[in-house]
Amino acid sequence: MSDYNDTMNRAVATDETDRLIASNKVEGTAVYDAAGEKLGHIYNFMVDKVSGKVEYAVLGFGGLFGMGESYHPLPWNALTYDTSKGGYRVDIARDRLQGGPSYRTGEEPFRDRDYGRRVDDYYGTGAF
Amino acid sequence: MSDYNDTMNRAVATDETDRLIASNKVEGTAVYDAAGEKLGHIYNFMVDKVSGKVEYAVLGFGGLFGMGESYHPLPWNALTYDTSKGGYRVDIARDRLQGGPSYRTGEEPFRDRDYGRRVDDYYGTGAF
Repeated sequence: MSDYNDTMNRAVATDETDRLIASNKVEGTAVYDAAGEKLGHIYNFMVDKVSGKVEYAVLGFGGLFGMGESYHPLPWNALTYDTSKGGYRVDIARDRLQGGPSYRTGEEPFRDRDYGRRVDDYYGTGAF
Repeated sequence: MSDYNDTMNRAVATDETDRLIASNKVEGTAVYDAAGEKLGHIYNFMVDKVSGKVEYAVLGFGGLFGMGESYHPLPWNALTYDTSKGGYRVDIARDRLQGGPSYRTGEEPFRDRDYGRRVDDYYGTGAF
């Protein structure tokens, strides 16, 4: 019980102290899969201008699938920050990411208002 | 009436199409005061890791006050995107910004959990 409380107190303290993160620190942060293997990094993330809410994280995979850098947007909620790794963890299988919506340098698919919905539909909203 | 509807339709279409903005496009965007004069630029912005909400925009002022680059955090809601300017507008007087919480390169005041509250207290939450 005491151990439990200690753990909870530490968790709360950490949450409050490190609750805010700078946008330019999110960009470039490593992303790991559930097994702890590095998948790629955060390329950037998409913010809703009206609500000020981060909606999507865009993962950059440098030639991971043998085809040069590609960008894979995910619902922001799919990411969990793992303090032991110093990076984000994504519990999505590699082949599921590979088959998901993606784009390349110079493409701006989010200009199409339906693109975010495609991402949501593929990964399922509220699944994380 | 027809003109009004046209305007409203365009506004809605623009909102929906451009509702999402990439994090790395927000950084570096110009910031203007109410009179349309350039104040500085967005240096970065602070995201709440838990809620995924953007809480503060950090304005970078390059020697504006004669003292080299300084960083002035503002509640995110204080910023309005002005499509005609291609930048953000802030209806806060220059001297009020000058007197507000600020820091310099290498300082990370948001590590202190009370710093955000100081910013809120200075500018007033819900005021925008």
